[in-house]
Amino acid sequence: MTLIHPVILCGGSGTRLWPVSRKSLPKPFLPLVGEQTLFEATLARCADPALFAPPIVVTGAAHLPHVEAQLHGAPARIVVEPAAKNTAPAIALAAAMLPKDAVMLVCPSDHHIADVPAFHAAALAAAALAREGRMVAFGITPTQPETGYGYIRRGAPLAGGFAVAQFVEKPDLARAQQFLAAGDYSWNGGIFAFAAGAFMAELAAHRPDMAAAVRQALAGARSQGAQVYPKAEPFAAIAGESVDYAVMENTAQAAMVPVAMGWSDIGNWQALHEARAQDAAGNAVRGRAELVDCRNVLVDSDGPRVSVIGLEGVAVVVNGDEVLVTTMQGAQAVGKLTGAAQQ
Amino acid sequence: MTLIHPVILCGGSGTRLWPVSRKSLPKPFLPLVGEQTLFEATLARCADPALFAPPIVVTGAAHLPHVEAQLHGAPARIVVEPAAKNTAPAIALAAAMLPKDAVMLVCPSDHHIADVPAFHAAALAAAALAREGRMVAFGITPTQPETGYGYIRRGAPLAGGFAVAQFVEKPDLARAQQFLAAGDYSWNGGIFAFAAGAFMAELAAHRPDMAAAVRQALAGARSQGAQVYPKAEPFAAIAGESVDYAVMENTAQAAMVPVAMGWSDIGNWQALHEARAQDAAGNAVRGRAELVDCRNVLVDSDGPRVSVIGLEGVAVVVNGDEVLVTTMQGAQAVGKLTGAAQQ
Repeated sequence: MTLIHPVILCGGSGTRLWPVSRKSLPKPFLPLVGEQTLFEATLARCADPALFAPPIVVTGAAHLPHVEAQLHGAPARIVVEPAAKNTAPAIALAAAMLPKDAVMLVCPSDHHIADVPAFHAAALAAAALAREGRMVAFGITPTQPETGYGYIRRGAPLAGGFAVAQFVEKPDLARAQQFLAAGDYSWNGGIFAFAAGAFMAELAAHRPDMAAAVRQALAGARSQGAQVYPKAEPFAAIAGESVDYAVMENTAQAAMVPVAMGWSDIGNWQALHEARAQDAAGNAVRGRAELVDCRNVLVDSDGPRVSVIGLEGVAVVVNGDEVLVTTMQGAQAVGKLTGAAQQ
Repeated sequence: MTLIHPVILCGGSGTRLWPVSRKSLPKPFLPLVGEQTLFEATLARCADPALFAPPIVVTGAAHLPHVEAQLHGAPARIVVEPAAKNTAPAIALAAAMLPKDAVMLVCPSDHHIADVPAFHAAALAAAALAREGRMVAFGITPTQPETGYGYIRRGAPLAGGFAVAQFVEKPDLARAQQFLAAGDYSWNGGIFAFAAGAFMAELAAHRPDMAAAVRQALAGARSQGAQVYPKAEPFAAIAGESVDYAVMENTAQAAMVPVAMGWSDIGNWQALHEARAQDAAGNAVRGRAELVDCRNVLVDSDGPRVSVIGLEGVAVVVNGDEVLVTTMQGAQAVGKLTGAAQQ
């Protein structure tokens, strides 16, 4: 069996996890769940040499020191993007570097996946569909009427998955509840499998300027050890766009593989609280803390002791010279705080 | 008119205002409301030379540096207690140092009084009754069914006040509500006026051992500048007791002066929140903070920025290496926290 090529995307800043996630040390590089950072866990999920080739990591210059440190010497190619242009150009850089028949598995590096065997099973099913020329999205089985994610409605069955009937933008709560009840909607978690050549062909068909610019940037690239630096000018001219808009919503080959794998994008403190180990009262504590009469409280402190009395559904986060106290419902608004915007 | 002698009691540690109030810098010496410390404000209330003689401050050795610093050079006698023996012996030390006909006004140093003219009017009324030999308590008009204070039920009217019908221990909520509705109950705020000689006579009648021990401790006292150090051995032998138990509940001369003066004992973070200036949403902030969708939130930070989203009726206190987050209802339990007990 041919190996799957992991393509690991390291971008973004995760301001909704401020003050722990900061521009200088963003979300993928923090040990938010368990002992590993999210990036380390993403690498570990794709490290079985019976299934995976060494990964291609696509990142920016600012994150490069973190990437190198957290690879811990594992073999990898690192593509250093000259500019952040969203996911379609980042994926295209990796696709254009791989042989046409190579199957790539695109993995964001800032998600948590509790059930790794389920992830592997879905990766194998998605890779099989990708080898047939399908553009394959992981369709994550929803567990709640989430309004923060895009949805995928599944269509006709395929071997190991389904055709995609429709990609759906983030819904309001009423529609999200309908999707959950309907049963044929999945979350779009941003995990994809493509054959590299098929992906570039689809990109050339739907975004010819982007495909050409990526090839020019790679043609003029310089290498330095395991690092590849695409040429800045052609890449800078690209209109940034997500792979969903550029390819998935336009291709006739869209497919999805349903998977329930304890997935979370750890999009805010509420999501992180749900992903962390909790005691019988639903409290999850990191750092020195004393909780009295508390339920569903998250405490995360990098030093000071945190004493909490009588709260329910609240996150208390202490990091450096910042203290955040938010209801779980308010966690979506953290990115708009002055402190999160200033950093 | 003869002047009133303020007797200012500086004891206690105020663990329920932890982590701001700590053993090393307890509640009287902190600027909890406004710019002045509670001790400074207590001195200022009794500083009008047309009404008051220089005060006698009764304190312990541990608090002496704070007392001296916060007197800011004002004339005062300082009695340094060899041991903490509750209020009756502390008051007796001052009483035994004063001429028999001197009227003393006993003031705790860790309370807040918003309406100083009302305090002065009550002090004059209480002093007039004290000159007639009455043991006079301030009876603070209750504003809520408080279960944390003792109550005074007033009896027959006197000139400028009332006889005391009964001192009542801290009630449960149902009784506190009855007291509030009845209208003839006041809070016992621990502020008293006595003629010095009359007080010592009452003490000798009801607690002869305590009265004798106080006189012995003073007879063997040494002076150092403005400081008086009573002799340790006789004082150490005293069974500590409050002036309420030792004198007020036994004397036939108990009187009370009703007063509404915006009084608070700042007994916990909820009480402090009520005493501090609040914005239209009921929020009270000290230090750097950003509040989003908050009501009746207290923030007190000695440095770090505090960002709060979506909370109501909560205090967030940051001090040194301690962070406290408590509901206002939970504020009574702060003194039982590990952090408060350890310090």
